[in-house]
Amino acid sequence: MQIPKGLAPMVPSTEDALAAERSKAAFKVSDMHQFIVDSDMRTKVAKVEALMGEEPETFSLRKVYFMSRQEKMEHALAIGKRLIELLKEGKLSGDDISIADMVLDINGPFGLHRTMFIPTLQNQATVEQQELFLRPALNYEILGCYAQTEIGHGSNVQGLETTCTYVPETDEFEVHSPSVRACKWWIGSLGVTATHAMVMAQLIVGGKRHGPCPVVVPIRSTVDHQPLEGVTVGDLGPKFGFNTMDNGFLLLNRVRVPRINLLQRYITVSPGGKVSRPANVDPKVAYGTMVYVRTQIVRNMSQVLAKATTVAVRYAAVRRQFKSESSALESPVLDYSMVQYRLIPLVAQNYAMFATSQAFLAHYQRSMVEMDKGNFAPLKELHATACGLKRWTSDVGVAGIDTCRHVCGGHGFSQFSGLNEFYGNAYPNIIWEGDNYVLSQQTVRYLISQVRALRAGKPVAENQTTRYLQRHMPQGQLHAAAFDVSQLLVQKEAQLDLLAFRSASMASALVDALDAGRSWNHSLVDVQRLCDAHSDFIVASYFRQHLDTLDAQSPLVPHLEKLATLLFLYTLEQHSADLFRLPRPFTPEMVAQVERALARAIEEVREQAVPLVDAFGISDFRLNSALGRSDGKVYDSYLEWAMEDPLNNDEGLRREWFEKYYKPVLHGKSRL
Amino acid sequence: MQIPKGLAPMVPSTEDALAAERSKAAFKVSDMHQFIVDSDMRTKVAKVEALMGEEPETFSLRKVYFMSRQEKMEHALAIGKRLIELLKEGKLSGDDISIADMVLDINGPFGLHRTMFIPTLQNQATVEQQELFLRPALNYEILGCYAQTEIGHGSNVQGLETTCTYVPETDEFEVHSPSVRACKWWIGSLGVTATHAMVMAQLIVGGKRHGPCPVVVPIRSTVDHQPLEGVTVGDLGPKFGFNTMDNGFLLLNRVRVPRINLLQRYITVSPGGKVSRPANVDPKVAYGTMVYVRTQIVRNMSQVLAKATTVAVRYAAVRRQFKSESSALESPVLDYSMVQYRLIPLVAQNYAMFATSQAFLAHYQRSMVEMDKGNFAPLKELHATACGLKRWTSDVGVAGIDTCRHVCGGHGFSQFSGLNEFYGNAYPNIIWEGDNYVLSQQTVRYLISQVRALRAGKPVAENQTTRYLQRHMPQGQLHAAAFDVSQLLVQKEAQLDLLAFRSASMASALVDALDAGRSWNHSLVDVQRLCDAHSDFIVASYFRQHLDTLDAQSPLVPHLEKLATLLFLYTLEQHSADLFRLPRPFTPEMVAQVERALARAIEEVREQAVPLVDAFGISDFRLNSALGRSDGKVYDSYLEWAMEDPLNNDEGLRREWFEKYYKPVLHGKSRL
Repeated sequence: MQIPKGLAPMVPSTEDALAAERSKAAFKVSDMHQFIVDSDMRTKVAKVEALMGEEPETFSLRKVYFMSRQEKMEHALAIGKRLIELLKEGKLSGDDISIADMVLDINGPFGLHRTMFIPTLQNQATVEQQELFLRPALNYEILGCYAQTEIGHGSNVQGLETTCTYVPETDEFEVHSPSVRACKWWIGSLGVTATHAMVMAQLIVGGKRHGPCPVVVPIRSTVDHQPLEGVTVGDLGPKFGFNTMDNGFLLLNRVRVPRINLLQRYITVSPGGKVSRPANVDPKVAYGTMVYVRTQIVRNMSQVLAKATTVAVRYAAVRRQFKSESSALESPVLDYSMVQYRLIPLVAQNYAMFATSQAFLAHYQRSMVEMDKGNFAPLKELHATACGLKRWTSDVGVAGIDTCRHVCGGHGFSQFSGLNEFYGNAYPNIIWEGDNYVLSQQTVRYLISQVRALRAGKPVAENQTTRYLQRHMPQGQLHAAAFDVSQLLVQKEAQLDLLAFRSASMASALVDALDAGRSWNHSLVDVQRLCDAHSDFIVASYFRQHLDTLDAQSPLVPHLEKLATLLFLYTLEQHSADLFRLPRPFTPEMVAQVERALARAIEEVREQAVPLVDAFGISDFRLNSALGRSDGKVYDSYLEWAMEDPLNNDEGLRREWFEKYYKPVLHGKSRL
Repeated sequence: MQIPKGLAPMVPSTEDALAAERSKAAFKVSDMHQFIVDSDMRTKVAKVEALMGEEPETFSLRKVYFMSRQEKMEHALAIGKRLIELLKEGKLSGDDISIADMVLDINGPFGLHRTMFIPTLQNQATVEQQELFLRPALNYEILGCYAQTEIGHGSNVQGLETTCTYVPETDEFEVHSPSVRACKWWIGSLGVTATHAMVMAQLIVGGKRHGPCPVVVPIRSTVDHQPLEGVTVGDLGPKFGFNTMDNGFLLLNRVRVPRINLLQRYITVSPGGKVSRPANVDPKVAYGTMVYVRTQIVRNMSQVLAKATTVAVRYAAVRRQFKSESSALESPVLDYSMVQYRLIPLVAQNYAMFATSQAFLAHYQRSMVEMDKGNFAPLKELHATACGLKRWTSDVGVAGIDTCRHVCGGHGFSQFSGLNEFYGNAYPNIIWEGDNYVLSQQTVRYLISQVRALRAGKPVAENQTTRYLQRHMPQGQLHAAAFDVSQLLVQKEAQLDLLAFRSASMASALVDALDAGRSWNHSLVDVQRLCDAHSDFIVASYFRQHLDTLDAQSPLVPHLEKLATLLFLYTLEQHSADLFRLPRPFTPEMVAQVERALARAIEEVREQAVPLVDAFGISDFRLNSALGRSDGKVYDSYLEWAMEDPLNNDEGLRREWFEKYYKPVLHGKSRL
């Protein structure tokens, strides 16, 4: 099916509209790209996109919107197999492959083998076990997954019900799922792929429980892929997104494995059943891995939100609706203040996320260096910050993609917008690695402990969090400009000070409430809010830190400063209720000033909106969106993609449907 | 695939947990159901569910989660065909069919024929045209759709580019799509089904434009369903939801139709090209239809949100996570305050939506009676209210389903939760029939006009809106209790008064800003907020009105009162920033009192949460959710559904994948 010939061109064209936006650019887009996206990401994305460009058949994304679940899985398998070949050929590194997954937005069935099975072996297997399991895993002679979550147990690892019982008679472990509630669930790469599962199970030796430990359980034959004796395993069905991944379930019916299959670096069971703990778990390993995973989530959320804001800003710049008072043409919807209000702060948040991602990773790396030296002082704050940022970036990212979709109007609802695919695949980030509501408690427990220590005059580790708590407790020591809105607009220190004061005040009030006897469970609503207030400060602070790495004379500075101030004002405006409740409260007139300043900032930044999203540097290949095309040729492309729908091209199917459904209706018994 | 035998039962069981919740019911669920769901809905749902129960093969929903787009379409076609047969046999009425669509949550390809094509003919065709088009349409001898939206034109009907030009030489119209931007788009039932399109096109006679008018254009043969000459038509591809509907595109290349195909009740073109307007469009028709459609959206949003809250509340009652301080068992997540805070106010909003749906429909019907008598005074307020309620209920409904999904944790992400299907199908309600952001302007324009009239001392029609504006302007005449939180909790009048005062104050401030020269475009953020404040009042007011229809002695009253007060407190808490900015502002201590009262109310209502959602009366068939089952047998059912996944049962496919993808990886070239 093709667009008929002879149609008149659209006047004004969408291409011209986008070109006009770009002609307004007041900074060099490539310079901005270099500053806001870290060099590692830039290099690797360029490398994998080039490689994929050489094999367009395998790495095509064009047909993905028409695929059924099964076709998506098969597409991901073909890609996954090819990536492993490229890895074996030395053309791609393991890191490159994770970038490839991100570029394609396809998380395929070999993913958890790399991201969970292998790292667990690296961290928790003895040398002997590494030879036995890690070596074949690295060679892809076995395919693994990490089976922790159970159908009835998500966040509560201690509550897992799967057991791993030592059998002294045969020197084996018996791994068992006692009830349906112990069924392993959500396990990525388990559904159709894995030959081996790293099962987290309650270790029982001589009747005594030792808590959850990882044990390697072979589940499918490496010869013919058939499930082994006692293993009930399968794919857990279609999901809201992530349908290229075979999340699976696993029930084990008294499956025996040799004693050596229990990873023994941190706990050892000797022949006969003596349990010892040869090494304490290195806190760097336990927390470091968690924090590292969260640095990756922050990075990924920046990237996926960038795809969404790129689509929405570009499309809003070329989509026209209703005539303005001043023009005979319909106005681009990006000129409407309500569209700007929804989209422009999101672009600022996206910039903040990119900057935060870099500053946070740097913080993580510095902390790891300290820990290598045996200094574990940075650990708690690092972990608290990581939890807060994982929550902040995934909340903003997932809600932001939804905002972008709605801004695109009806067309956002089409799969060809790309936004629904982004949304579905990004969505789990608010749940996994600690549900965002659970995670906020981690951050806030740390804040509370520091507030209590400060109140009691105890020493606290010095870091970005304790510094601001110290400054504002027991009472606010505010920068003079923090309560003068006109000053706030120009004084960066005062901006951070106000955000810190907000968070510190809320932390202080929460401690008061707890001290007065309110239970933790009754405090959870306040806990969420405090976590967000803290993260608002951290994000603003990291954003500033990253800006400070730029030469003060750089022509990028004024544009980035505008974004930082815009984000600050938006944060205040979104949480104006907090401002009214500060120990030194804002007045209604001050809040109105904030709103007016925000409206002006939004209008200013709108002028650079298209260059600002161009600077994210997302290729058309990655966007895979008819609406977000970099050349602005939106409607032709959208129509062409629709015409490719198999429903429009399968004559046989259409004849069959006509005979079966339409003809009996049209030519059937009369009603009247 | 089957669950292996010999597993131990889960202790405590999820069934027992749900039964325990039900045993706490302090009211009769069937009485509550009768009160909160209108009798028309109850009767029709029962009727269609009974009928569907007789033909489980056709009306099955069980496999829907595994279906590809094409399979979904075919499933909907089979259902649609059967419903038409039942209609022709007199077993179902047209109304019943719309209920059937709602019950199944399947909007099939025959839908727009009934909901748009036929009504347009009924309203705008002459008697002669009714014989020509309406009669065969009612007989399903032709299948229609309503082709208004274009790829480049959504809300702006005046901007449509498709033309309908009179050709005096042949006494025909030439219907034409000049450019791709004029391509008809999103048209339901057009993609593969319709034989006729009601095309909205710019009428041009003798070179003069007369605005958009409806013209009937045959597009596919009724004999073999092939597209007719000059017609490019097809399905516009997969969407975020609504994939049982064939939304389509249509390009017309100078297609000629006889003069009689232009619907001529409100505009007539005579042979030779004289244009006259025989009858003014009856405002009852123009606005009445729009308002009626919005009463249906309010009703549908109540129903779909009820499905989601039923799933989430039941599942939260049986899902356990972490041990509480007081028990050896893990706690049901519904006992966590953060889960309650997200879920219980939503249940209250859901009750308010059901009540509002009934009260609003009654208001609509009273207004129609007035208009039949020639009194058009209620029209403007009715329209403003309808716009506000469409926005309020669809915003709350769609966001609410998302909240329910997130509350279910990871399992909400599975299609078997049902929630994703509800979400995708409900989502378009925030966009169609006026995008919610555009729609708020309609409501607020009315509010502004009434504020201006009142300020100028001009007479205004008396209605619920003008009454509250009058009461609070020029200054607030507040109920004495409105600023005493403890009094507010018990005095219903004061609650409504405070909500009215908030809305009136915001309306007044907006008029001041506009009068001071701020442009409409710069006021849109305030416009949204005012629209919501107004709707908060209207919803609370309708909720009260519906409660007042109940015998004061009814044992249901205290439970409903609690819900109404909870919703009121939640509205205040969510908008506490507004309270601080009232002409007579709340203090931080008052807001804290509101928060404490809300927390108590939530805890109280939580005790009745399961009976309260049971009272929505949604059958397991409709829920189609493994998590929301009324018997609480969640995990077995969830696992059984997963086991039915074709991926788990297609041995041939699995062997093929093993040979093609896994074997080459497992047994391929070594890496190390």
